[in-house]
Amino acid sequence: MNAQKRVRDRLIDLRRDFHQHPEPAWCEYYTMDRIVNEVTNIGVDELYIGREALAPSEQMSVPSEDVHEQWLEHARELGADSDLLAEMSGGYTGAVATLKEGNGPTIALRVDIDGLYINESTERDHLPAAEGFRSENEQTMHACGHDAHMTIGLGVLEALKESEFEGTFKLFFQPAEERGSGGKPMAASGHLEDVDYLLALHVGLGHPTGEIVAGMVKPLANIKFTAKFSGENAHAGVAPESGNNAIQALGTAIQNSYAIPRHGEGATRVNIGRVEGGTASNIISDNVRIEAEARGETTELMEYTFKRLKQVLRESATMHDCDVDFEVTGHSPRADSNEDLSAVVYEASKGVDGVTDPIMQADFGGSEDATCLMNVVEDNGGKAAYSIIGTDHPAGHHNSRFDIDEGSLRIGVETMCDAIVQVSREKP
Amino acid sequence: MNAQKRVRDRLIDLRRDFHQHPEPAWCEYYTMDRIVNEVTNIGVDELYIGREALAPSEQMSVPSEDVHEQWLEHARELGADSDLLAEMSGGYTGAVATLKEGNGPTIALRVDIDGLYINESTERDHLPAAEGFRSENEQTMHACGHDAHMTIGLGVLEALKESEFEGTFKLFFQPAEERGSGGKPMAASGHLEDVDYLLALHVGLGHPTGEIVAGMVKPLANIKFTAKFSGENAHAGVAPESGNNAIQALGTAIQNSYAIPRHGEGATRVNIGRVEGGTASNIISDNVRIEAEARGETTELMEYTFKRLKQVLRESATMHDCDVDFEVTGHSPRADSNEDLSAVVYEASKGVDGVTDPIMQADFGGSEDATCLMNVVEDNGGKAAYSIIGTDHPAGHHNSRFDIDEGSLRIGVETMCDAIVQVSREKP
Amino acid sequence: MNAQKRVRDRLIDLRRDFHQHPEPAWCEYYTMDRIVNEVTNIGVDELYIGREALAPSEQMSVPSEDVHEQWLEHARELGADSDLLAEMSGGYTGAVATLKEGNGPTIALRVDIDGLYINESTERDHLPAAEGFRSENEQTMHACGHDAHMTIGLGVLEALKESEFEGTFKLFFQPAEERGSGGKPMAASGHLEDVDYLLALHVGLGHPTGEIVAGMVKPLANIKFTAKFSGENAHAGVAPESGNNAIQALGTAIQNSYAIPRHGEGATRVNIGRVEGGTASNIISDNVRIEAEARGETTELMEYTFKRLKQVLRESATMHDCDVDFEVTGHSPRADSNEDLSAVVYEASKGVDGVTDPIMQADFGGSEDATCLMNVVEDNGGKAAYSIIGTDHPAGHHNSRFDIDEGSLRIGVETMCDAIVQVSREKP
Amino acid sequence: MNAQKRVRDRLIDLRRDFHQHPEPAWCEYYTMDRIVNEVTNIGVDELYIGREALAPSEQMSVPSEDVHEQWLEHARELGADSDLLAEMSGGYTGAVATLKEGNGPTIALRVDIDGLYINESTERDHLPAAEGFRSENEQTMHACGHDAHMTIGLGVLEALKESEFEGTFKLFFQPAEERGSGGKPMAASGHLEDVDYLLALHVGLGHPTGEIVAGMVKPLANIKFTAKFSGENAHAGVAPESGNNAIQALGTAIQNSYAIPRHGEGATRVNIGRVEGGTASNIISDNVRIEAEARGETTELMEYTFKRLKQVLRESATMHDCDVDFEVTGHSPRADSNEDLSAVVYEASKGVDGVTDPIMQADFGGSEDATCLMNVVEDNGGKAAYSIIGTDHPAGHHNSRFDIDEGSLRIGVETMCDAIVQVSREKP
Repeated sequence: MNAQKRVRDRLIDLRRDFHQHPEPAWCEYYTMDRIVNEVTNIGVDELYIGREALAPSEQMSVPSEDVHEQWLEHARELGADSDLLAEMSGGYTGAVATLKEGNGPTIALRVDIDGLYINESTERDHLPAAEGFRSENEQTMHACGHDAHMTIGLGVLEALKESEFEGTFKLFFQPAEERGSGGKPMAASGHLEDVDYLLALHVGLGHPTGEIVAGMVKPLANIKFTAKFSGENAHAGVAPESGNNAIQALGTAIQNSYAIPRHGEGATRVNIGRVEGGTASNIISDNVRIEAEARGETTELMEYTFKRLKQVLRESATMHDCDVDFEVTGHSPRADSNEDLSAVVYEASKGVDGVTDPIMQADFGGSEDATCLMNVVEDNGGKAAYSIIGTDHPAGHHNSRFDIDEGSLRIGVETMCDAIVQVSREKP
Repeated sequence: MNAQKRVRDRLIDLRRDFHQHPEPAWCEYYTMDRIVNEVTNIGVDELYIGREALAPSEQMSVPSEDVHEQWLEHARELGADSDLLAEMSGGYTGAVATLKEGNGPTIALRVDIDGLYINESTERDHLPAAEGFRSENEQTMHACGHDAHMTIGLGVLEALKESEFEGTFKLFFQPAEERGSGGKPMAASGHLEDVDYLLALHVGLGHPTGEIVAGMVKPLANIKFTAKFSGENAHAGVAPESGNNAIQALGTAIQNSYAIPRHGEGATRVNIGRVEGGTASNIISDNVRIEAEARGETTELMEYTFKRLKQVLRESATMHDCDVDFEVTGHSPRADSNEDLSAVVYEASKGVDGVTDPIMQADFGGSEDATCLMNVVEDNGGKAAYSIIGTDHPAGHHNSRFDIDEGSLRIGVETMCDAIVQVSREKP
Repeated sequence: MNAQKRVRDRLIDLRRDFHQHPEPAWCEYYTMDRIVNEVTNIGVDELYIGREALAPSEQMSVPSEDVHEQWLEHARELGADSDLLAEMSGGYTGAVATLKEGNGPTIALRVDIDGLYINESTERDHLPAAEGFRSENEQTMHACGHDAHMTIGLGVLEALKESEFEGTFKLFFQPAEERGSGGKPMAASGHLEDVDYLLALHVGLGHPTGEIVAGMVKPLANIKFTAKFSGENAHAGVAPESGNNAIQALGTAIQNSYAIPRHGEGATRVNIGRVEGGTASNIISDNVRIEAEARGETTELMEYTFKRLKQVLRESATMHDCDVDFEVTGHSPRADSNEDLSAVVYEASKGVDGVTDPIMQADFGGSEDATCLMNVVEDNGGKAAYSIIGTDHPAGHHNSRFDIDEGSLRIGVETMCDAIVQVSREKP
Repeated sequence: MNAQKRVRDRLIDLRRDFHQHPEPAWCEYYTMDRIVNEVTNIGVDELYIGREALAPSEQMSVPSEDVHEQWLEHARELGADSDLLAEMSGGYTGAVATLKEGNGPTIALRVDIDGLYINESTERDHLPAAEGFRSENEQTMHACGHDAHMTIGLGVLEALKESEFEGTFKLFFQPAEERGSGGKPMAASGHLEDVDYLLALHVGLGHPTGEIVAGMVKPLANIKFTAKFSGENAHAGVAPESGNNAIQALGTAIQNSYAIPRHGEGATRVNIGRVEGGTASNIISDNVRIEAEARGETTELMEYTFKRLKQVLRESATMHDCDVDFEVTGHSPRADSNEDLSAVVYEASKGVDGVTDPIMQADFGGSEDATCLMNVVEDNGGKAAYSIIGTDHPAGHHNSRFDIDEGSLRIGVETMCDAIVQVSREKP
């Protein structure tokens, strides 16, 4: 009882420290320092960091050097280890920790670690503000629960060491999930090659404390990208004909992007979520930048949509004598939870104190780059499942008032730990 | 001869000081301090500043308090008079200086004083960089020649005091010409009510040193405005239908704005020169802001275009369940130079040393808010003309390498001074 | 055996006669004459024609008087009964025949009777051309199998008279299915009020001879309509501004219609399938007419799409100072086959000679206005099912080379007859 | 006096016959028969018909064989000469008649001969209806005054024979002016090579009886064309993604065509005046045909606009996986009346009874393919002028109630005849 409370308190402390120090994608420097400390204290057999934990060639959407320098400096001020920082400098965040306990299958758990560019609420009824662990970093916030994910991951590692687990356990700390840009390089790291079972988790998503969804299915495959239209400036009064108008290219692009034909075989999505370009009202604009995405019920449907979307953007540019360049910034394919593995999580959850509503399967409305890792494991003949740990959350994900019920941290740790132990018995 | 050289050197020094300290529209605090000092040294009968020089109720496109505070601080650091700054604080820049010399008509000269948001070239063959008077203010530059305009204005004032001028001379220092937002409040100041003749001038515009265009005609009437679309955010994957997509409203608006019917009675122009909105690829955007303008060969044609443009923007918003708000930020009607008054400038220029190509009349491709002042004078039965003082300029206006031939400063002063003296003899 | 061959030959003769004389929606005059003759020969207890068989107030998309006169004349030439023609004149085609055989539930079968505006193939390997029963009517063809549907309906009626059927059997001959405009008025006729079980059927749809799909589910709800934009003519060279350009309204409408947001809850469709307007290149067009439709996975999703589509068309018109008028021409809601009733058809089909692949349930990609009738029956507490009678078809539906395997006619008759007899035993 | 009345009556009879028998472009068979008869009766030295009067290779927008056959049959019924009809069959209408009277310059007059697809008014206050010479041909009408042009041309020929004219006179009867497709082949006929002076004329255009405009200037250069988008059909419900949607290509094309940048150097125009395509609401359309045009204040500005218009149409097609084909159907460059030649007409008109307001020069709002001929003459060193013969017209050109004041026929004949005689004296 006391021990359980001690664990619970430790989990809460850890989560609050992560919550107070959110860092954006590819800049999780302080976060990584803290993770490495925790993992080292718990004790693992192997620990891979940065370039050894993910494939640099697959990294997308890495910020500029300035941004890195600012977050490195911030981590230094918080006392992060300078050797570790040097190793990660330039966006090589992420880690894989391995525990080897006798013979048995190789089981992995993947948690994500990045925050969002959101300014956390200062209102008194927002618990992190009231209790003093609101984000110290302006315009940056753990508003999606990744602070809880890391905490649960570390909790599982610690709990497994004290369990009857036999086999190899790999804990993946994945950066840059929010942009969908960290999953692919981590999937290509090589560390998944021998994994027999992969688990991943998310808190909340509308499921209250007491619910566990063992296996999520039907996420939308997603590709995110930026496109830059470049044309030619001109004076809008004197010689409009001599301009190559990037804003007109944009207008054509917006209209035709959303009008890409729906597909008879399933749902597709298109969105241009951000536009910026031009200088002043009297100048024909020579530049516009957009952030856009294509989704599909299957990876093929996403690819159909992305292909047509690029075609629309290219022809829009050509029509107005502009050029357009694309850069893919995020990618997550379709992947569904394996039924057998989900069943193990489902059964495990039933035995956990506080789980009132175990659910076998549910649809996932959005997208997740854990699917990159899931597909690698499935392609190698392994099994993967993505579970939800229910938690009461007073506001929606990506909202400045998002928060979790910290009581769900322990539920998450116990459910995952028990499932892993159970799976480890099923020698493959 | 020595005196002439002294004058010439004084003009160059003055212009270089203005050039080195450009300030944006409504923030010409240091500039005004320098102008007031010069005017006071020369000696005038009346001097109106800020709220007394222009109608505050007609001001458009005034920046936020933060911006003012920054430029006030900058002027303070340069030693500007604190009482004067207090009087102008909040964007009440601009001045009217009056010289009374016996009986005669009231003749006005209008010069503009604001700089542009352009980063001045640092290249060695850019004279201001080579000779050390490049802009001290990052992202701000006199790239249109207003530094020369002020200098010529002050030169004319000084020269008139030593001439046979008889009558009243009013020198208008107009802020915020670049946005077309300073002309209207200055026109409404009341100081033009008794003006019989109004002159205005611009350097360059493609005319080399030695050319003088006595009277510009056919500027395009122009109205500039911002529009903000506001809709409703939504998750682009989970529930796109629940968003009211401001970026789709933008797409419809761009396409239809440029497609507003051409007019059988003369030229019209439409431009959307700046767009910005939305947050990220996976969010249906709830906001977009644009900077746009409508022009016409006549004020009526401009109004036709502006009316249809607002209609397009409104219906684009309604179509996508968004709202749209407009704010007019600049306005300049059509006004043509009076032929009689142009003829006086034309004749005067012939007698000026260095004028090789006097031109009676030329078309003006762009727009100018001096027309606001010209129309008030014409409506009161007076006469107005807008002249070009030719100057060699190595790069186009609004270019980071724009510069003038300082030899044209003296030509401008002498031409304007002689024309004013000549007009003063034509007792009305 | 001989009897079976006789029935088979009769069915083929009947189908070929229908095939040779296709008539478009609301003009099925000869077809109705033939149906009435057949039904009368077989012998029924009640027979309702035209205005007594469907609700005239709910009729949509009825052609002009000229068109009716042409098809009436055509039917007269083929020897159709003049009293019958007079009764139907003006588009009151359609019939309901009732057979009363003792106590038992009321069971209905609905078949559709109209042809399409397609020119039938004359190629030698197109069986109707080779064997001399190709359409006699230019630009009109039974290219969807309604000739087979009527034939099967009449075959079932005849077979039931010789069966152990006890109850009331109603045979609905529905006009104007191809436009989705006949289902609604027939559903509102009152003849469905006492129906306990409703069956409907379609041949082919990609299912070969030997397959039977007992219950179709998930048709797309569909609404079809025409819209007319009216503006103002103008000379495109002299005064384009004085026109209200219906073709510009069309351009805006097309672009934004297809871009109506996809819906998170299921599939939607938008199509503008026909456009026509304007007169000549040098006239700003004052009129455009379109034929369009909205679909949805559910009736609600169709209504969401239709509502936004009307909004797009209205705002497109207003933007260009035009008006727009709508006329709904077809309507079919979502309705799924009842599982219990489907099960009866499924079991019945198993016992029919030639049925090799009975299928319990399948998705329906397109739309069908039989759903209008199905919903009335379901709303009254009855059960409805829509079945497919597999048939080899050498070309797709709505293709000029469409044809059926006439062997499937007997399979259809027997399956439906057996199912009806079986249902009649389940006294409700 | 009596002679003058006789001439006047003859002109009116002739005009009314033409008016009663209007024929569309390239189908002026009866009209040509009547012209040939008149010319032969008057007596000329040479007469070139059809293929000898215009360059067949330059013909544009010639209708289909069916249309020709219908109008040939119509001419036959009216008693036209069968040899002549055979010679012209297939659209080779048009004629050049030459009169040689001693030494002197070669002077040409061009008149156009085609009618419009307009249904003439039957109202009693429409004079042609009241007096029995309303168009006998449904949907065809001389609603632009070409009946008057031909009449004046023939009147000038007759009058010249009785005048002191010395030189060569060529009378060009040009077909297909309304589509802008007859001017180019006539200009390429070779008959203009030796022409020193070319006159052309139009009645009305808002100028009342008594006004003569000696020289029109500033017509808009014009190019007319059709474009056909071809894509791929698909079922709009089942598989919208498999279609290549020509109607979506149209939507993109319309939006971007009108949005082609205005040009700083002068007026431009774009219009899509006719659209038609697709089959039914539930089919993704595989075809759309448009009739469109581009204009410019100069030929260069028209070409700029046409080039961008083709680019817009091409990229719109490519964007939606469609093809697009163009066919130019009409072409008229910019050409201004020569001042010297206009002055002769101006002076001549002053001496004509009934001319109250001679005008030297006026702007021409629209387009005219007489400019094709004018440019050939000017390029060869000759002079060309286009004059307006004022006439009261109760309704605008191209209106079903258009009519002329027949009193202006004589004014036209006398003005042109006198001018030609005057020019013939100016031996070049």
